Amino acid sequence: MADINSIAKQFTEFYYSTFDTNRAGLQSLYRDASMLSFEGQPTQGAAAIAEKLTSLPFQRVQHKITTLDAQPSSPTIASLIVSVTGLLLVDDGENPLQFSQVFQLIPEGGSYYVLNDIFRLNYGA
Amino acid sequence: MADINSIAKQFTEFYYSTFDTNRAGLQSLYRDASMLSFEGQPTQGAAAIAEKLTSLPFQRVQHKITTLDAQPSSPTIASLIVSVTGLLLVDDGENPLQFSQVFQLIPEGGSYYVLNDIFRLNYGA
Repeated sequence: MADINSIAKQFTEFYYSTFDTNRAGLQSLYRDASMLSFEGQPTQGAAAIAEKLTSLPFQRVQHKITTLDAQPSSPTIASLIVSVTGLLLVDDGENPLQFSQVFQLIPEGGSYYVLNDIFRLNYGA
Repeated sequence: MADINSIAKQFTEFYYSTFDTNRAGLQSLYRDASMLSFEGQPTQGAAAIAEKLTSLPFQRVQHKITTLDAQPSSPTIASLIVSVTGLLLVDDGENPLQFSQVFQLIPEGGSYYVLNDIFRLNYGA
């Protein structure tokens, strides 16, 4: 699964660097059928998802990936599920927050778009 | 997405209660094409996955679900992605461990099997 893992690595590096520097630029990764669950709140469609992501109430954010796993998600197309755990540094906060995020990536024209996106913060026990 | 959410809730309640009381019973949820990534270690196929799960080095375990999210994962079949975060109590340990787990469930004969399963412990920052 070397290829799957390198696709997952490239995608997540692009996704989080875009999130951290130019959130509006994430819209191109989603389509009309795309779904986002952000802390349990559902949103559908590229425009609505971009609106949701750009309206999150922080100015500066930095994602650091801790673990990254990927698996093929279909016997018929080259889609994949990518599961990330990591740390989120928000504004001038000194205590990073743990998060979990899952994507399903669908191949399209030599690249991929995000069909599924589920994000959760992980609060301590 | 009420239906999706109730399927996800039923599945995860069954999965974790089986895991915590009769781990070998999980084999019936997987098929030959099923994939498990457990702490980054890949396993494929129902028998190999059951062997992996039953050989995990703890005697007693209890899963507690903290968050549960589900989305449809295909435009053509009624499959779904289920994302769980929760706490794991192992043997007589007093400090629960946080975990993240992702499943893709595929419909089959009025029920579902697990095609994808990605499990990670979340260590503190």
